[in-house]
Amino acid sequence: MTHVNPTMRAATCTRGAFAVEDLPLPEPGPGQVLLRVVRTGICGSDLHARQHADQLADVAEALGYTTLMRPADRVVMGHELLGEVVSYGPRTRRRWKPGTRIVALPMVRRGEDVLLVGFDARSPGGFAEYVLVQEVFAFAVPAGVPDDKAAFTEPLAVAWHAVRRGAVGRTQPAVVIGCGPIGLAVILMLKAKGVKKVVASDLSPVRRELARRCGADVVVDPRVDPPWSAYDVPAPVATLTGYARYGMDAIGLMRRVPLLPWGRLVRAGDALGATPTGPVVFECVGVPGVLDDVYANAPLRSRVVAVGVCMEPDTVRTAFALNKELEVRYVFGYDPEEFRHALDLIASGKVDPTPLHTGTVGLDGLGAAFTDLAGAEEHAKILVDPALT
Amino acid sequence: MTHVNPTMRAATCTRGAFAVEDLPLPEPGPGQVLLRVVRTGICGSDLHARQHADQLADVAEALGYTTLMRPADRVVMGHELLGEVVSYGPRTRRRWKPGTRIVALPMVRRGEDVLLVGFDARSPGGFAEYVLVQEVFAFAVPAGVPDDKAAFTEPLAVAWHAVRRGAVGRTQPAVVIGCGPIGLAVILMLKAKGVKKVVASDLSPVRRELARRCGADVVVDPRVDPPWSAYDVPAPVATLTGYARYGMDAIGLMRRVPLLPWGRLVRAGDALGATPTGPVVFECVGVPGVLDDVYANAPLRSRVVAVGVCMEPDTVRTAFALNKELEVRYVFGYDPEEFRHALDLIASGKVDPTPLHTGTVGLDGLGAAFTDLAGAEEHAKILVDPALT
Repeated sequence: MTHVNPTMRAATCTRGAFAVEDLPLPEPGPGQVLLRVVRTGICGSDLHARQHADQLADVAEALGYTTLMRPADRVVMGHELLGEVVSYGPRTRRRWKPGTRIVALPMVRRGEDVLLVGFDARSPGGFAEYVLVQEVFAFAVPAGVPDDKAAFTEPLAVAWHAVRRGAVGRTQPAVVIGCGPIGLAVILMLKAKGVKKVVASDLSPVRRELARRCGADVVVDPRVDPPWSAYDVPAPVATLTGYARYGMDAIGLMRRVPLLPWGRLVRAGDALGATPTGPVVFECVGVPGVLDDVYANAPLRSRVVAVGVCMEPDTVRTAFALNKELEVRYVFGYDPEEFRHALDLIASGKVDPTPLHTGTVGLDGLGAAFTDLAGAEEHAKILVDPALT
Repeated sequence: MTHVNPTMRAATCTRGAFAVEDLPLPEPGPGQVLLRVVRTGICGSDLHARQHADQLADVAEALGYTTLMRPADRVVMGHELLGEVVSYGPRTRRRWKPGTRIVALPMVRRGEDVLLVGFDARSPGGFAEYVLVQEVFAFAVPAGVPDDKAAFTEPLAVAWHAVRRGAVGRTQPAVVIGCGPIGLAVILMLKAKGVKKVVASDLSPVRRELARRCGADVVVDPRVDPPWSAYDVPAPVATLTGYARYGMDAIGLMRRVPLLPWGRLVRAGDALGATPTGPVVFECVGVPGVLDDVYANAPLRSRVVAVGVCMEPDTVRTAFALNKELEVRYVFGYDPEEFRHALDLIASGKVDPTPLHTGTVGLDGLGAAFTDLAGAEEHAKILVDPALT
């Protein structure tokens, strides 16, 4: 027996202004589940969408996705979802009992369209008492996992996807630039993967402390110690063996390799395209200028995983990237397997997102929370609990 | 018996101005070989170094290499070298008889320094009657290989390195943007590697014709047919299988995949980091704006190999690269194995660089040749033969 009101409280956002309103309770369509929201995390993308919805929608539209929110739309945001099953729509398998806690990928189907939950006026998100998700993209949270941990499944899936795409070897240096929620989640996932030494860099002492708590082995203030200097990046000695057959004189030529002309000399004998000799650098800031700084200062043949979402046009000196033979992997989102793996890591205790959780607010506190997060020195992740007032 | 004059004719470049002068004949140092120059190719980097030496030197200096040419230096350029053995310096193995034709990596040792031949006032290049190379970086050209083919070893090594770094599968689409000498060399090497379909794009009808002669399967004028539309890029159907376990509804959700929200849905089940689902795109133009165009228009999960050297700061919309999960591999130079492999491919007839060869000049014709190449519509590669007047 589930009692459902015909309306719900929801925080709407119109032209950047939040308002808590009574909206009609959503009705689950084919394949959908209605959830009572337990927690919804606030994501950096939410901050961006609130202020620069047109920018996001323009990029999405250029990629063929035409229904993303525009500033004038009245949208319920929130896509990092944790809720309890209330009821099912038609053509569902009804896999879980009402009350079961669920995390879900923020996508629902509506007719022929797939809508992003929380970024589209037609698919209201989790900053509300109730939300709709697609049953096929939902996963039950095992009993005993605290709400405040399970709510981190979505951002940890983003981080897990980035770490997989980075293909970091356990003994390879990993450098995380920017210790906001995604940078911290990347640190957690690198350590969960067994990467032995993780260097983290952030301007904020608060965030550096969070990076330490997430398991970073070396934590630097980039104004004092460039992340590159904090780490003994191994010289590409192995690559010299390829020159041995050309005689000892070639080895002599090679002796100065790390400084060598234009990176030309560091490549013989290594598995091209497979393993870079430099570290894997996770760019988790996403503001103009950061990639250029990485290009200018990262060691030869670093792999750069661009996780931070930079929406503005960015200017880079590609001559540095070329001469160092950098590789840049741009990453976005995750797939359902990665999402489930993130949940498994949380449920098994292998990953503990607690250091990321710096606050909880009710729907009425959303505006203040967004302001706090934009300041960014104090907070990492703020969760919304619609039951709070 | 080799007769050597105490001076040689050489084309010097000072503040962008060429002059043919009598210079002292270089004396081979330890490990070095003196060559009589047979042919030296003119490279795009030579054009750039002539006009923007400071820009090149600044980048090199930032990377720890401090002796590159500055505009006021009097430099003999030329680093795509083919010559005949004249004499050896001390501590050489004297592996080849005088008169043997040699190609060599353009690097020599001088004391503790490694100098780039043709880009440094201390290591004169091949736009001269004689040039010094390092014996360990030299390879004999088999008898019967025409001079005008062997002279392409260096630029083909650049292309071979780029193709290796691109890790293109034989049945994977390859797209070459820009059909200058490097783009054409990349096309030759892709076909030599057995890549079944290569799409080439250039604004110039002359260069499009050269691309055809180099073996490109589809040749487009990007103002008429974007290289992406000329090709049936396979939809990432295989990646959908990962969703099957989530039920038929998920497959239904997936049906619109190539247009789907933000590339989020195309990844399940594929080998992350190993094979992109999109084509491999070789950017061989190297002027600002080209990478941005690739980011905006390339298919989801393309791998971009940046071969063109863009020396100016470049502005890119990384939001596109992120949302499509592009991967960018910046490449530069080659290693001795790749250099030798390029020579082997030419010698065995597997690669015929003849279409690239659009002119030959003597030392006195260097200035006019640089001007012709800067216009770029007519020419691909001009070789310098110091025996011509």
